[in-house]
Amino acid sequence: MMQKDKKALLSLSGGIDSATVLTWLLRNGYKVLGCSFLYGSKNNPHELQAVQKIYEYYKNNYPDGQIGYLSIDISSAFENVKSNLLKGQDPVPDGDYNNLSMRQKNIVPSRNIIFLSILSALAESNGADTVAIGIHKGDDIIYPDCRPPFFYAMKKAINLGTDGKVRAIAPFLFQNKAEIVKYGLKHGTPYHLTRSCYKEQEKACGKCEACVERLEAFRLNGAKDPIEYEIAIT
Amino acid sequence: MMQKDKKALLSLSGGIDSATVLTWLLRNGYKVLGCSFLYGSKNNPHELQAVQKIYEYYKNNYPDGQIGYLSIDISSAFENVKSNLLKGQDPVPDGDYNNLSMRQKNIVPSRNIIFLSILSALAESNGADTVAIGIHKGDDIIYPDCRPPFFYAMKKAINLGTDGKVRAIAPFLFQNKAEIVKYGLKHGTPYHLTRSCYKEQEKACGKCEACVERLEAFRLNGAKDPIEYEIAIT
Repeated sequence: MMQKDKKALLSLSGGIDSATVLTWLLRNGYKVLGCSFLYGSKNNPHELQAVQKIYEYYKNNYPDGQIGYLSIDISSAFENVKSNLLKGQDPVPDGDYNNLSMRQKNIVPSRNIIFLSILSALAESNGADTVAIGIHKGDDIIYPDCRPPFFYAMKKAINLGTDGKVRAIAPFLFQNKAEIVKYGLKHGTPYHLTRSCYKEQEKACGKCEACVERLEAFRLNGAKDPIEYEIAIT
Repeated sequence: MMQKDKKALLSLSGGIDSATVLTWLLRNGYKVLGCSFLYGSKNNPHELQAVQKIYEYYKNNYPDGQIGYLSIDISSAFENVKSNLLKGQDPVPDGDYNNLSMRQKNIVPSRNIIFLSILSALAESNGADTVAIGIHKGDDIIYPDCRPPFFYAMKKAINLGTDGKVRAIAPFLFQNKAEIVKYGLKHGTPYHLTRSCYKEQEKACGKCEACVERLEAFRLNGAKDPIEYEIAIT
């Protein structure tokens, strides 16, 4: 008997976590519909360029139909949400692991709840039974919607809310960013095409929380981050 | 000590269930921010007119600041979702309680998951600790995201995903439409301003699932539905 095609919808941010989940899904035999969300974040234009490049990279390296791409505009839903990461609001601060109250201003409340919900709505209509997201260990200190208890409750809500038709997975839920990068380096994730910086500028700043954590993840793997930064990286 | 203001974000569809939840919230001392979602349904324009009228009715009858209104456009998220209720897709069939497979085509997958998620994102930023929705007994036969087990999982996901800051409530979770209408008739819900019909037309058709169920709810209360229908209602 032929095995039924596995198909997953994946939230693609343009960053290294979701790019690595894409690698994981493709290596594990999933067809993938990558979905990017326009939600009014300062780095949205650069993120979406990165998503487009990552998508094209894999499209050229995998058989036809293995990967698709969908852009979804939900900026209206975030117009009345407060976060340093959203356009027109307070500046994104430089990264500081020890300043939790500062880091909390970088939270976009309920972002992953919304992304997973929309993927879930799209799944059935697009022949997919899986929705995937790049949440992982490390982010869970700050972001409540990156923690395993949240993810398991949401997984259950999606399963029950779709009558068992859709399951949510987070392949790196218990791995940290350095472990994710280790996986991606081994399996050819195109990190040179990714974008993590929170700031509204062309070149990654190298100083915000997202840049600092990303650089650290490469450093811990004894590898050089292949993207360009505004500052010299030692 | 002054009691802290209670504030809830409510998904308002223009229909009788959510209008009655609005009555319930206001009577229970909540400030309310009513949120309507533009998601590409055939009856969206009429629904939104109804929401606007219900909002204005309560605004004129309650103190300043007690009720607000927000319209959120998430039609992009539903462009690739299949449902008879969405624009450009198969026609909405006439109501037939016994035809479950027909009724299932009226499902908009994961709609309540998405609505609750977005309300949750908006809650914190708008000074609210509660999100409310009009799901109830009766719809649960067909719509998996109207069932108590789904709602409790989602409530937990929202609670955990917001670090305990937001709680979801569904005041009529265990009541059917007739019981909802009973409450609303007693407490002055402006049913003459509501709109339930699924079809893309000015006057309610009186035949689709939404019309049939609504008419039945009034009938069971020995009351006349105050809105106009395209057909004679006996």
